[in-house]
Amino acid sequence: MQSYFYEYVAIYQMASLLRSSKTVSVSARMATSSKRLAIILGVGLGSGTGASTARIFARAGYSVAVAGRQQQGLDKVVQDITKQGGEARAWPVNDYSEASLQSLFRSIREDSPDVPVRFALYNGGLWQMGNFLSLSASDLSATFDQAVLPAWVFGQEAIKAFQGSADTNDNSARGTLIFTGASAALRGSANFAAFAIGKFSIRALSQSLAREFCPQGIHVAHSIVDGIIVTDRLRPAGKAKHEEDPTQLLNPDSIAKSYLYLAGQDRSCFTQELDLRPGQEKF
Amino acid sequence: MQSYFYEYVAIYQMASLLRSSKTVSVSARMATSSKRLAIILGVGLGSGTGASTARIFARAGYSVAVAGRQQQGLDKVVQDITKQGGEARAWPVNDYSEASLQSLFRSIREDSPDVPVRFALYNGGLWQMGNFLSLSASDLSATFDQAVLPAWVFGQEAIKAFQGSADTNDNSARGTLIFTGASAALRGSANFAAFAIGKFSIRALSQSLAREFCPQGIHVAHSIVDGIIVTDRLRPAGKAKHEEDPTQLLNPDSIAKSYLYLAGQDRSCFTQELDLRPGQEKF
Amino acid sequence: MQSYFYEYVAIYQMASLLRSSKTVSVSARMATSSKRLAIILGVGLGSGTGASTARIFARAGYSVAVAGRQQQGLDKVVQDITKQGGEARAWPVNDYSEASLQSLFRSIREDSPDVPVRFALYNGGLWQMGNFLSLSASDLSATFDQAVLPAWVFGQEAIKAFQGSADTNDNSARGTLIFTGASAALRGSANFAAFAIGKFSIRALSQSLAREFCPQGIHVAHSIVDGIIVTDRLRPAGKAKHEEDPTQLLNPDSIAKSYLYLAGQDRSCFTQELDLRPGQEKF
Amino acid sequence: MQSYFYEYVAIYQMASLLRSSKTVSVSARMATSSKRLAIILGVGLGSGTGASTARIFARAGYSVAVAGRQQQGLDKVVQDITKQGGEARAWPVNDYSEASLQSLFRSIREDSPDVPVRFALYNGGLWQMGNFLSLSASDLSATFDQAVLPAWVFGQEAIKAFQGSADTNDNSARGTLIFTGASAALRGSANFAAFAIGKFSIRALSQSLAREFCPQGIHVAHSIVDGIIVTDRLRPAGKAKHEEDPTQLLNPDSIAKSYLYLAGQDRSCFTQELDLRPGQEKF
Repeated sequence: MQSYFYEYVAIYQMASLLRSSKTVSVSARMATSSKRLAIILGVGLGSGTGASTARIFARAGYSVAVAGRQQQGLDKVVQDITKQGGEARAWPVNDYSEASLQSLFRSIREDSPDVPVRFALYNGGLWQMGNFLSLSASDLSATFDQAVLPAWVFGQEAIKAFQGSADTNDNSARGTLIFTGASAALRGSANFAAFAIGKFSIRALSQSLAREFCPQGIHVAHSIVDGIIVTDRLRPAGKAKHEEDPTQLLNPDSIAKSYLYLAGQDRSCFTQELDLRPGQEKF
Repeated sequence: MQSYFYEYVAIYQMASLLRSSKTVSVSARMATSSKRLAIILGVGLGSGTGASTARIFARAGYSVAVAGRQQQGLDKVVQDITKQGGEARAWPVNDYSEASLQSLFRSIREDSPDVPVRFALYNGGLWQMGNFLSLSASDLSATFDQAVLPAWVFGQEAIKAFQGSADTNDNSARGTLIFTGASAALRGSANFAAFAIGKFSIRALSQSLAREFCPQGIHVAHSIVDGIIVTDRLRPAGKAKHEEDPTQLLNPDSIAKSYLYLAGQDRSCFTQELDLRPGQEKF
Repeated sequence: MQSYFYEYVAIYQMASLLRSSKTVSVSARMATSSKRLAIILGVGLGSGTGASTARIFARAGYSVAVAGRQQQGLDKVVQDITKQGGEARAWPVNDYSEASLQSLFRSIREDSPDVPVRFALYNGGLWQMGNFLSLSASDLSATFDQAVLPAWVFGQEAIKAFQGSADTNDNSARGTLIFTGASAALRGSANFAAFAIGKFSIRALSQSLAREFCPQGIHVAHSIVDGIIVTDRLRPAGKAKHEEDPTQLLNPDSIAKSYLYLAGQDRSCFTQELDLRPGQEKF
Repeated sequence: MQSYFYEYVAIYQMASLLRSSKTVSVSARMATSSKRLAIILGVGLGSGTGASTARIFARAGYSVAVAGRQQQGLDKVVQDITKQGGEARAWPVNDYSEASLQSLFRSIREDSPDVPVRFALYNGGLWQMGNFLSLSASDLSATFDQAVLPAWVFGQEAIKAFQGSADTNDNSARGTLIFTGASAALRGSANFAAFAIGKFSIRALSQSLAREFCPQGIHVAHSIVDGIIVTDRLRPAGKAKHEEDPTQLLNPDSIAKSYLYLAGQDRSCFTQELDLRPGQEKF
């Protein structure tokens, strides 16, 4: 049933692509040939938001470039997608430095120069907790180096990739750049000073970019993920809980579907920010 | 091409419905038979957000109850939907009083007692502008009577209708209640005191209801519409401008699609608030 | 020691008054003669925010008009102030209707037509709690009639009173209008739909008025009171707790001092909103 | 008249100090002897917010440690304060690195180990503007190194200094830590991505610290400075404009007075955030 669902998502997206073209006769097959690229940074071990986004965008007809530091996670995602007839390629990076990320985009673009880049997801971050006086300045630097700076560089490269791709001829976005955020972007909690600085920063960045680039047809959005996401890393008890009651934890596929929806928004109606939260989550 | 698009939306929604059912063999025809009802209050003259939502939900397979004060608008929407093979019925109301809205829901439920109510849109409001000292207490009362109180009563009736319908057996929402909001819900501007009170109130209501009812699988969301919506009422110059550059004004169909997306969110991942804005809008 | 404190507050305010006057030779006595009026609506039984504000503004040299529905509370406040050499008069109102509040301001102005009105505090509200479906439309109307509409009318009358008073000749505000708000103005909680609507509304109003009237030198501010205020109504256990640990509950005198500070802000530096919270309060 | 004003501010603060002491007979002289230290980082050339705060806290009886990178600015502030009978000492720093700021606090504490530290102002920042693609990763690093990291280290050192000082025996704050913020802390504007990241970060930090340390009686606040501040750097036209119409630009003395008010708040009533804005400022 699941694969059945994804076909429809693909068709839905294709329909969106074709919305304003009035003369073309279409078939489901054509959707595959009108290629477009999605670049996703941060897939961990292959079972969270980044991985789900890769799979769901692949099903929707995107060719997916999956980037991250863990080869194992990249391989898992690419295998899943390929097995189901989708297109994906793994792009391992050693780190999230400016040089590495610039090199990543250069390589991806050289690999398929004619495929327009239409989607980019920054899904990085660094979990940090601890009372304020126990955290050092280098803990804060780690947040900056591993969460904020990579988001900045990724944003620059993504926007240049969108601008370097042929524009769409309907009213769909020239490209959609999403930053996965968190409720810590709205609230600096006790014992989360460094974490909150990272999340606030990414929200600040997403707003600045939306205000600068939306007028050019480039969609920039920020999600407020408010809850625990079900991943393989989650201890089995947590996952079982989700199986029993899916209103307590976030399904990463559902987050990914929100990103697919955002990527399908046309230029008359962009969303800059939305929250995503299990029904049972206190907020 | 447009009708082609809507079929896909319908299939997308159906797929969503069937997501977790594992044994059923499906066809597109079945979607129509697994009926569900959408109730929409406020369609004006039939060319704005409420009307678009009615049309798009009808295409997605919902049976639509369209309610409002202007018979002309209701008729237009119902005709459009019927012509395209959808199901809709007009429910004129004399006013937005408690009694009228309670009677409306009673009548709708009696009309199709076995069809579960899964969606409700409150699309009312009252535009008011004027410097503060020129507005009277009765201007403020008008906002309360025509915008806030109706939202309250509509919310109560919608939630009772969701609770009175059979629950879903997958993880989809038992019902989705959306309030159309505006940027005035976030900011009280000069000369918009009464208008801002109305919009802030509806946002307050939507948050309270989300916190009370999301744990029961009832999704409550609020949209921040930030820009001018293209309607028939818009002076021709405005509409022409939109035809030339669709990044300056909001297409009500695009707003409606966001509502369809929200209605499709599953219980592990609800959005309480999202903004909707043309690419060119300053914010 | 307390009365000693208040003298200094009075001098502080006087100094503020005299800030930019360069030729006048002053004495503490003069402060009393350069009269100005503070109008305070909502003093309950005489032990909360409204009552504290009345006392503290009286000590700071304002002549205070204390208005409310409970004669007992008004009398208590006036006696306290008079006993300490301050000036105050009770203005009972039957209700918070438009007519009553307009009549209140007319009477106050007729009583001392030559004293400029420089401060007005709206301290009304209506506590309401209950699950949404148990509250009726008339519960919501009560919020509107007893909290929102009175704030609106009070705001209009206060601004007209400021405009009808001679302007200041230094850079101090022509008048300061404060609305006592609450954390429910920022967050609609479960079971507090009506209450949140009231508090969001007052925040909306305060923002609109600030944006409309601050350019005229009229200061409009909103406080976010986030915590339980120590009043006589509080059960003895609560008050004892406060005596032992004053970081758990709000001292109304401290709230009042924040209002005195706001009233002293000059036109180059107005605060529209500030939060007030005990050190121990979770937020 | 101005110096007259400051005396009253000093008395006001002293009264605040003495609020809950019930047996002591006091005189204005005593205020001077009950010393307490204010540490201010960032005074530029001696005419902005940091400098005004130093002067106003000195008048209110604080001994002031003025730190910054520009000797000229430090000297100016110290001379002003000394000339008027206040106590101040300049603490030049080469840079805002972790080592420099830790050394600064160590030196200040060694200089007057018995004087409790009661106030600390972080007034740093880095103005950056430019379209996003023209800014490099090193521009962002500059924001981090010169604005965010120093705020973090300053916050740690200030809190340790408060904790290392004898507690107050009334209900006044053990120490007050203020971060000067800006409207860019609430809104990421086009062409201000790096600047917004810096300001959002400082807001995140201030919230985390407030939630962690307010329960200990340590007050942490953040100001939203929304407007242009009158400084010597401001071109004469701007300053003349302020002389003519003080509702268009922020007077740094008025900002400083808000900080003095915040420092005087007792533990039952702390403000975490307030905005400061000229009457004419659009917002």
